[in-house]
Amino acid sequence: MTQTSNTPALSRRRALLAGGAAALTGAALAAPAIAQGAPRVIRMATSWPADLGGLADSAKRVAERVTAASQGRLSIETYWAGELVGALDVHDAAAAGDIEMYHSAEYYFQKKHRGMNFFTTVPMGLTSVEQAAWIEYGGGQELWDELNATFGVKALAVGSTGVQMGGWFNKEITSVADFEGLTMRMPGLGAQVITQLGAKAVVLPGGGIVEALFDGSIDATEWVGPYNDLQFGFQKLLSNYVYPGFHEPGTMASIGFNQAFWDSLTTVDQALIRAVARAELTNHTADYYGNNGLALTQLLKEAGSKPRLLPDDVWDALARASAEVNASVAQDDDMGRRIYDSYEAYRRLMGTTTLVSQAEYLSRRGMTDLFADV
Amino acid sequence: MTQTSNTPALSRRRALLAGGAAALTGAALAAPAIAQGAPRVIRMATSWPADLGGLADSAKRVAERVTAASQGRLSIETYWAGELVGALDVHDAAAAGDIEMYHSAEYYFQKKHRGMNFFTTVPMGLTSVEQAAWIEYGGGQELWDELNATFGVKALAVGSTGVQMGGWFNKEITSVADFEGLTMRMPGLGAQVITQLGAKAVVLPGGGIVEALFDGSIDATEWVGPYNDLQFGFQKLLSNYVYPGFHEPGTMASIGFNQAFWDSLTTVDQALIRAVARAELTNHTADYYGNNGLALTQLLKEAGSKPRLLPDDVWDALARASAEVNASVAQDDDMGRRIYDSYEAYRRLMGTTTLVSQAEYLSRRGMTDLFADV
Repeated sequence: MTQTSNTPALSRRRALLAGGAAALTGAALAAPAIAQGAPRVIRMATSWPADLGGLADSAKRVAERVTAASQGRLSIETYWAGELVGALDVHDAAAAGDIEMYHSAEYYFQKKHRGMNFFTTVPMGLTSVEQAAWIEYGGGQELWDELNATFGVKALAVGSTGVQMGGWFNKEITSVADFEGLTMRMPGLGAQVITQLGAKAVVLPGGGIVEALFDGSIDATEWVGPYNDLQFGFQKLLSNYVYPGFHEPGTMASIGFNQAFWDSLTTVDQALIRAVARAELTNHTADYYGNNGLALTQLLKEAGSKPRLLPDDVWDALARASAEVNASVAQDDDMGRRIYDSYEAYRRLMGTTTLVSQAEYLSRRGMTDLFADV
Repeated sequence: MTQTSNTPALSRRRALLAGGAAALTGAALAAPAIAQGAPRVIRMATSWPADLGGLADSAKRVAERVTAASQGRLSIETYWAGELVGALDVHDAAAAGDIEMYHSAEYYFQKKHRGMNFFTTVPMGLTSVEQAAWIEYGGGQELWDELNATFGVKALAVGSTGVQMGGWFNKEITSVADFEGLTMRMPGLGAQVITQLGAKAVVLPGGGIVEALFDGSIDATEWVGPYNDLQFGFQKLLSNYVYPGFHEPGTMASIGFNQAFWDSLTTVDQALIRAVARAELTNHTADYYGNNGLALTQLLKEAGSKPRLLPDDVWDALARASAEVNASVAQDDDMGRRIYDSYEAYRRLMGTTTLVSQAEYLSRRGMTDLFADV
């Protein structure tokens, strides 16, 4: 996934703020009046366009629930990509105190430190619940806090878009050689992996992908998964949809706060925000599971073809390159080494369990005839 | 999983209540003083013994977080299995208003209605996030509310123990015939499935399983998964550990409330409890993913053998019987039919997606050499 740059539009922003007021839930309005001061306004800039299903919905839910749970003590104002700051500038803006909060994905900030990728997703990495387990119980949050503290930011996990498909291509992928000379849109560490295979990786905002496909400047792309892929209409432009995706197995979104602002919150309000973030981790992930299922069925109908399984030798080459690229982060500095070591140990632990439980169960659930119904 | 009957023990209960007071988190204690009445006490009876890792921890977290998030307006008193009411009697007790709340699993109440199973887990059913997606976005919560309303109960999901392993056996399972005459401990609809294969299914509380294995009254058992299996020490008694489990692919725990009590809560407090429950859905599930991973590594070391993959023909026989048993719930009554139809449609939808995303990804993550490290 990536961001879409929106032109600041004042009229749109006004409409949005009006919507934000209406979004004060019945829960908050029905709250027993408790003596308190004016609401504390939190400006939240997101990396998403307002109409992006899933991720934008998550930002809206977070805003509504924090307002409701705090009985209006806290009031989050939501700004879509480009309305207040650029989609990729939200971390800088929160660090500088220009905004109090962002809703984004940490791998957009990998230029600050490549360790950031591990707090979103890395190639051949953890799936959504595994990623949540590492963050919550595997030492992930502590390392994340330490890394973000160097920038003056405090961040929390708010959900996962699930396992990505392998992407859309202008030709069938039958061998590793098919990556040679291919220009593909891909962010994060995955971009460095396909570069090792001879491809040219391009990072494009979501809004630019369709245009780039039309003018032929890219041959292939990935985006978020079936739900958002369907929204963008890739099935009308490229007929080769491959699986599984190696590059984003459990893409985690995050909210981040200006550190001084976070520290100024009461312990109760910090606890409320943590609860809303954890709840959102469930809601957002479940939302994508359900909608990816519905969208995939629709994509198969519209594309008129089944997704193609990546050949074993292609997968193996991607796996080898992924292992090298991930490990290279450990060479960046001590922080990178500790993040990589912690994540990699957890990845191996999860790999053992899922191989003999979830992977085998899902493969064998007896759904082999499912495509016949589509 | 199942419950353990504990003898009511007053001294233990007193210690527990003292612990409950200490469990008021720093967050609550540090809260700014807001004028309000005495805390509203919620008696929560669980189906778990206090020392059961994971499920008991989940009950404790729910109690602490509701107290903290409500700034002490609500105060949950936790009672372990048998301390206030029997492990399996918590739903009856909540319905009758003898307690306000329970932490349990709905399939323990399947004698009231077999549709209850679908709100915990069913054979060949949904995995943890899929189950959460059905509940939240697939119509599950509405059906659940309708079913529980007939008993005067309102319930919410609070997490999943993940995909079960296939269980522990006193012999190798090489064919369907090996189930003939086998006595195995198993709850829920899975019990009816193995009965169709000629086995005798026994429902035993957790505390009775080890004893039954010692005295030879059962030949095989399942429990919760590696984390809790290790706690019970099955690896010391039975050497045949099989995978994957067909019977509990995403066992979901739940909290339930006396309906009149729930209705008497303010909309804000209902929203707080929903937020804590959703957060717990993430925490509890992540907790089991991590600990199942650690425990499986330990089990493999202690048992000195690898878990064995169920043969294809055994799996197919279990899959056929599971489909029949699940579908038979639709014959019970109109409620059963609507629950089955909704769940089954979602199961097929998820099956399509996971087959080309998660299942294939997990199988191919490149972890084939993992057992070599154990």
